[in-house]
Amino acid sequence: MTEVPSFDYAGRVARCRVTMERFGIDVLLASLGSELPYLTGYQAMPLERLTMAVIPRDGDATLVVPRLEAPRVERHDDVFEVLAWGETENPIEIVGNLIGSRNVAAIGDRTWAVFLLELQAALPATEFTSARDLTAALRLIKEPAEIDLLRRAAEAVDRVAARLATHHFAGKTERRLSREVIDMTREEGCETVDFAIVASGPNGASPHHEPDERVIGPGDSVVIDFGGTVHGYHSDTTRTFHVGEPTADYREVYEVVRQAQAAGADAVQPGIEAQAVDAVARDIITAAGYGDYFIHRLGHGIGLDGHEDPYLVSGNTQSLEPGMAFSIEPGIYLPGRFGVRIEDIVICTDEGVDRLNRSPRELIVVG
Amino acid sequence: MTEVPSFDYAGRVARCRVTMERFGIDVLLASLGSELPYLTGYQAMPLERLTMAVIPRDGDATLVVPRLEAPRVERHDDVFEVLAWGETENPIEIVGNLIGSRNVAAIGDRTWAVFLLELQAALPATEFTSARDLTAALRLIKEPAEIDLLRRAAEAVDRVAARLATHHFAGKTERRLSREVIDMTREEGCETVDFAIVASGPNGASPHHEPDERVIGPGDSVVIDFGGTVHGYHSDTTRTFHVGEPTADYREVYEVVRQAQAAGADAVQPGIEAQAVDAVARDIITAAGYGDYFIHRLGHGIGLDGHEDPYLVSGNTQSLEPGMAFSIEPGIYLPGRFGVRIEDIVICTDEGVDRLNRSPRELIVVG
Repeated sequence: MTEVPSFDYAGRVARCRVTMERFGIDVLLASLGSELPYLTGYQAMPLERLTMAVIPRDGDATLVVPRLEAPRVERHDDVFEVLAWGETENPIEIVGNLIGSRNVAAIGDRTWAVFLLELQAALPATEFTSARDLTAALRLIKEPAEIDLLRRAAEAVDRVAARLATHHFAGKTERRLSREVIDMTREEGCETVDFAIVASGPNGASPHHEPDERVIGPGDSVVIDFGGTVHGYHSDTTRTFHVGEPTADYREVYEVVRQAQAAGADAVQPGIEAQAVDAVARDIITAAGYGDYFIHRLGHGIGLDGHEDPYLVSGNTQSLEPGMAFSIEPGIYLPGRFGVRIEDIVICTDEGVDRLNRSPRELIVVG
Repeated sequence: MTEVPSFDYAGRVARCRVTMERFGIDVLLASLGSELPYLTGYQAMPLERLTMAVIPRDGDATLVVPRLEAPRVERHDDVFEVLAWGETENPIEIVGNLIGSRNVAAIGDRTWAVFLLELQAALPATEFTSARDLTAALRLIKEPAEIDLLRRAAEAVDRVAARLATHHFAGKTERRLSREVIDMTREEGCETVDFAIVASGPNGASPHHEPDERVIGPGDSVVIDFGGTVHGYHSDTTRTFHVGEPTADYREVYEVVRQAQAAGADAVQPGIEAQAVDAVARDIITAAGYGDYFIHRLGHGIGLDGHEDPYLVSGNTQSLEPGMAFSIEPGIYLPGRFGVRIEDIVICTDEGVDRLNRSPRELIVVG
């Protein structure tokens, strides 16, 4: 990895405090999820020992961390103090004391429920609320350095997609091909690989199919959906390959998805509602007679989380703005037969759209 | 993988209902975490679309799952019904309707806080409580088939430990060696590899060190802590290697940890309190003058979760019983110098203890 970015955590926390005032939040509690790395550069371990940053609107921030994990924390003394708790101490009590008599505490969405229950019991007068709106307000518009990392993560998976176009599929199990995709994604520069869905033949009709022992063979459509991270920022792309020559029927379905994906991406511009972009792509699929088989939203935001705001889904009236990053990923899923999905990450820009994923979207026949 | 076990989910849910009665719980809500796979065989995806099993004490169980993930669910019609929700539906409303007017709802500890907050808002008359005691009561004592899987997972990492004893360390970065450990763990039969801590030289003083670009060299102590899963059941072992001939000082510290680990394991027997086993090992380290440098508990339970009850920690008066599975992992961490940790998974048996990890615990010098 080259060029490790240095983010302005102090500036982010300052902006967080201003935003807390707007939402009437007195203290932010950040644990698992991306609030913590976004504001402090530190990522909590997903374990039973509580890690929680307590960020009051009106006081100093404290990172409460298990003593044995304290050496992992990169210090930013201008942003937060570190308070390490020992194995026989009660971290809920420590966090409770830091919250004190503040009224409204916003808690990160992915915090474990058990910690929320314990905090609620310890602080019956405090109102606990979701940090989602606060988080979204802070993180929806990406900084240029964040977009740069999203672009690098996207380019890494594009290189994998290019390799897959000449890769050998037939005779391999989904599990083996998934393993190969994971290895390639790492080779191309991702530090962590989040997932590599390989869904062949009828399995392709399950959008989140778990790769299994099915052997891929001639005549199979193969949906490959994968991504990894570069300095914490995610990539996520899907290409659907066909083993051997496809039928005319299959070509038709593929072409509908391709057109829907292109139209969805082209519809992105500042001011358009998230749900309107979903509708543009969905209308094309519905007009072709496959509306009942496009069973998920068009897309999701992406950044430090693989899925985050904005969600491109019917009912979401959020306007897109320059600097937002999200997927455009229509699909058609025909039970018992096959699935087709094409997914790119794009950025809303002043001019319209910037596609981060640029590997070919035309039907690719593999062997 | 051979011999996929078939667990008696109907029997487990029946036992769960009896235990709910004992704890005064009217309905169990199982989402992320291991309640769900334990009771239904299904593991929720850690995403923003809610997956939640609603298991009333007095009614039929329902698995509420995103429509696009429904094809992943292996059906057990005698255990639960599947209720798939579409992208524009509100899953909280669906779960709320299934809970109905039941008074006490126990929720899995690792459920995202945002879902708990939404359920609390939707059902103000319902008391939400942690499912931890219920979960522990169900899962603390492992079934023979569960112990068999824990043993297979332990044997897989033991084979990796054996390979490491003749592996080449010097000149590699921690990150590279960690990657090799992960690859070996997969080669030896684990389906997922949870982690591979490689902490060399002074980094060894950080128990949860993140492998970095430090180059391992002669004179380094190298703590390697790793594990993976076999059919969902975890392994977790630590061995500390030394590159080249160690000093007498180092040998002394290593020997203290080795003796503490042996004594801790030997102390395991039915009826002993979890904290007493911690004390047996800790006393040896304290007597040798290193008490301040053993900065974590002695061990944690293991099963479908990598860390679960029972915790071997001061203050835990839980009695050990035959069928419980947990780690014995003392360590000494000398800031700026090095760390030593030795960890095995063991089972409490009628006779005392059964060590699942059996790779050599003596000091191993590598090149």
